[in-house]
Amino acid sequence: MSDALLSTLLGILGPRGLLTEPSEIAPFVTDFRDRRTGTALAVALPATVEEAAATVRAVTGAGLPVFPQGGNTGLCYGAVPRRGVVIALRRLNRMREADAGSGLLSVDAGMTLTEVHAAAEALGLQFPLHLGAEGTAQIGGLISTNAGGTAVFRYGAMRDLVAGVEVVLADGQVFSDMKGLRKDNTGYPLSQLFCGAEGTLGLVTGAVLRLHPRMNARAHAWLALDTPEAALEAGARIRAAFGTTVEALELIDRNEALYVLAHVPGNRLPFDTAPAYSLMVEIAGNGSDSALSGQLEEVLAGIFEDGLVRDAIIAQNEKQGAEIWHFRHSVTEANKLNGIGVVLDTSVRPSAIPGFIAAADAVTAERFPEAERCIVCHMADGNVHYIVMFPFEAWARFPDAEAKEIEVEEAIHDVAARFGGSFSAEHGIGRKLTSEMARLVDPLKIEMMQRLRLAFDPEGLMNPGALLPR
Amino acid sequence: MSDALLSTLLGILGPRGLLTEPSEIAPFVTDFRDRRTGTALAVALPATVEEAAATVRAVTGAGLPVFPQGGNTGLCYGAVPRRGVVIALRRLNRMREADAGSGLLSVDAGMTLTEVHAAAEALGLQFPLHLGAEGTAQIGGLISTNAGGTAVFRYGAMRDLVAGVEVVLADGQVFSDMKGLRKDNTGYPLSQLFCGAEGTLGLVTGAVLRLHPRMNARAHAWLALDTPEAALEAGARIRAAFGTTVEALELIDRNEALYVLAHVPGNRLPFDTAPAYSLMVEIAGNGSDSALSGQLEEVLAGIFEDGLVRDAIIAQNEKQGAEIWHFRHSVTEANKLNGIGVVLDTSVRPSAIPGFIAAADAVTAERFPEAERCIVCHMADGNVHYIVMFPFEAWARFPDAEAKEIEVEEAIHDVAARFGGSFSAEHGIGRKLTSEMARLVDPLKIEMMQRLRLAFDPEGLMNPGALLPR
Repeated sequence: MSDALLSTLLGILGPRGLLTEPSEIAPFVTDFRDRRTGTALAVALPATVEEAAATVRAVTGAGLPVFPQGGNTGLCYGAVPRRGVVIALRRLNRMREADAGSGLLSVDAGMTLTEVHAAAEALGLQFPLHLGAEGTAQIGGLISTNAGGTAVFRYGAMRDLVAGVEVVLADGQVFSDMKGLRKDNTGYPLSQLFCGAEGTLGLVTGAVLRLHPRMNARAHAWLALDTPEAALEAGARIRAAFGTTVEALELIDRNEALYVLAHVPGNRLPFDTAPAYSLMVEIAGNGSDSALSGQLEEVLAGIFEDGLVRDAIIAQNEKQGAEIWHFRHSVTEANKLNGIGVVLDTSVRPSAIPGFIAAADAVTAERFPEAERCIVCHMADGNVHYIVMFPFEAWARFPDAEAKEIEVEEAIHDVAARFGGSFSAEHGIGRKLTSEMARLVDPLKIEMMQRLRLAFDPEGLMNPGALLPR
Repeated sequence: MSDALLSTLLGILGPRGLLTEPSEIAPFVTDFRDRRTGTALAVALPATVEEAAATVRAVTGAGLPVFPQGGNTGLCYGAVPRRGVVIALRRLNRMREADAGSGLLSVDAGMTLTEVHAAAEALGLQFPLHLGAEGTAQIGGLISTNAGGTAVFRYGAMRDLVAGVEVVLADGQVFSDMKGLRKDNTGYPLSQLFCGAEGTLGLVTGAVLRLHPRMNARAHAWLALDTPEAALEAGARIRAAFGTTVEALELIDRNEALYVLAHVPGNRLPFDTAPAYSLMVEIAGNGSDSALSGQLEEVLAGIFEDGLVRDAIIAQNEKQGAEIWHFRHSVTEANKLNGIGVVLDTSVRPSAIPGFIAAADAVTAERFPEAERCIVCHMADGNVHYIVMFPFEAWARFPDAEAKEIEVEEAIHDVAARFGGSFSAEHGIGRKLTSEMARLVDPLKIEMMQRLRLAFDPEGLMNPGALLPR
């Protein structure tokens, strides 16, 4: 049967659109960190929506599963296939339409985030989602994982930035919701349903993206604080003063600052010693940089007077602003060089951040005494990347590293759950966290999702094994 | 069987919670404009979620339909029942929890929008959804219709302002997603699915609402323009200059301005003659009113120089600002006094507004020569309330007024469809527009919605007849 299918696929896709050699397939069946490897009969590289639809129809028609893949930059193995056909969209990567007057960009799902940024800028607008893998990550994957980033509290996550999608359903029909309307109440929000569905409801082939005005003025500050409570209060004051123009409120702890200083050249601390907590602030609005910085200085003066802040600096020019964010963006590299960090993607309500951190610290101290904790937190949206950091030597001594990783994850996920939080804020579920779905998510919610999934894909052939527990 | 059911319901709800007398039921079976009347066996007024759940279970268990009702302020008869039990939530109206630090308010679905505004203000925050019926409209109804308003392009519609919901499903199970997390990727966005579902997927009993910082500075302007194209370009310039702090960009045409002047006392025009198009602008940010007004003046000067604007005034104080918005908010009353206006709830991409208006004008002139058109448009989100306004005498001469209304609606809906738009932007579908759903919406989308609906409510007992064509 698989020979017949391959010959059908070859007819649909042509030789450039179908990979079957093990060496060609290899990069598509392993995640980019080389942690998990799957198998696939073939990799389909459709160049048009019609080819994508015909491919899905042929594969599911043969009773085999489809594994959609974007830039393969996911952290949760959501794109690692198992005995079916991978459909990767790198050849479906054209911009379809730019509508500057409406602030909309219609794109193929295979465009990278960086390409979308450039297209938005060419229109004098911005697409406000940013993340580390933006040069490789594709729009379809970002939609399917409902990607987040540092500006979610201002602009929303991917789901909020998508005006509509085009999707190939399990039976090969193409659902197109590409009108790009801001207000449309003709029924259920199907497009939003595909955002974060990790390919289990269909293969996203296109999208209309919402662009935002560009900001022409910026101010940056770095606050030194003693506690998460103080950071929270300072953040609330800044938001009350600046309203919707707050662009970033990023919190890191002392350990994280020390790792950056130790491992990533070109970073320096603007304070004598590393503060217990650093809150990095960006305001982006209109007018002039200096006016915005002046306003920020005023607000910080008030926070200072009330004893919330130990120290603070405001960037006096673009270079100093860039230095703050270079420091912040060095954390991933620093952590990799520092040890084995088990990075949690937990989120709680912002008001619960201090309690969550204290409780997680207690668990870490008791159960993982070899480890330090460090924290990278998108504070305004409650997304705390609590990181349990093991020295390389300690990690090497664990007989089963994967079991240890799971042990850490479960322990901290339990703390998040106790504080009403989530164990998956922005990295997705993939194939890594489906057992946590079964363990921690309300069984009624799981049941409703299963029913919904079967309504769209009765045979369960779209990315089986991802997102939902079996 | 209905006697047994009523006695069960009496046991669940007590005598205060169950209405069965025709005179008591009457207000619940007719829409507030008295245009359509249905029938109901009884009206249930649960005071707790448990009572609501037991009521749904009892009614659907008896094979009868449930008709959820909020403030009964809808324009599309979505809450008009037919041979089942109405569940109205006016007694389920408590605030559950205020979390100022997280900007969240947890409420019963029976709270009114005005009550929510007050609760948000008590926390020093705002809930940014505003509409005419806010004193009566309830949160559950606003969620179920995904209500909009004038600030959608800044803050989003109801779906964007809801962090999670609590819903009684058709079988009486309670789905609760009240964590209130900004980032949570543990599966499909079920809560968002209930927003705009018009009760067809379940009865919304509670919600966590997202609050926003309050703005302490405002600037208002009224621009006089010759064409929608000029209004669009002026709006784009204002958004480019002010970014996310633009609060309202409301467009009305000359006829609408003349109706307000003729019928609603206390309104005056700041120009010598009524302009072809008026664009009313509100900027809301932080800092001082005067600084914001100064910035607005600068931006308008540039627009003026380029010949886009015929005339413009900037409010010099709060009173002048209030006058602009009093004028804008007088349109509904003015239209009622002026004639019979068939109000369309059409939306197109903003860039398509000029073309849509021109094409709709051509259709109106040809097919409804007795009528004038007037326009009330939330410009930045493309929501054009195109209104075909008949003199009372002309309307009285139509042998079948309802048929004429449908004729007008279909004619203008067809124009919207031609421009890639929607016939239902913010008023919902209800029982009024289900035939338009069948006529104008992609059959595949209808089929997907039907499947989704059956996945949650296999017997179709939740608000049958609303939203989806049968």
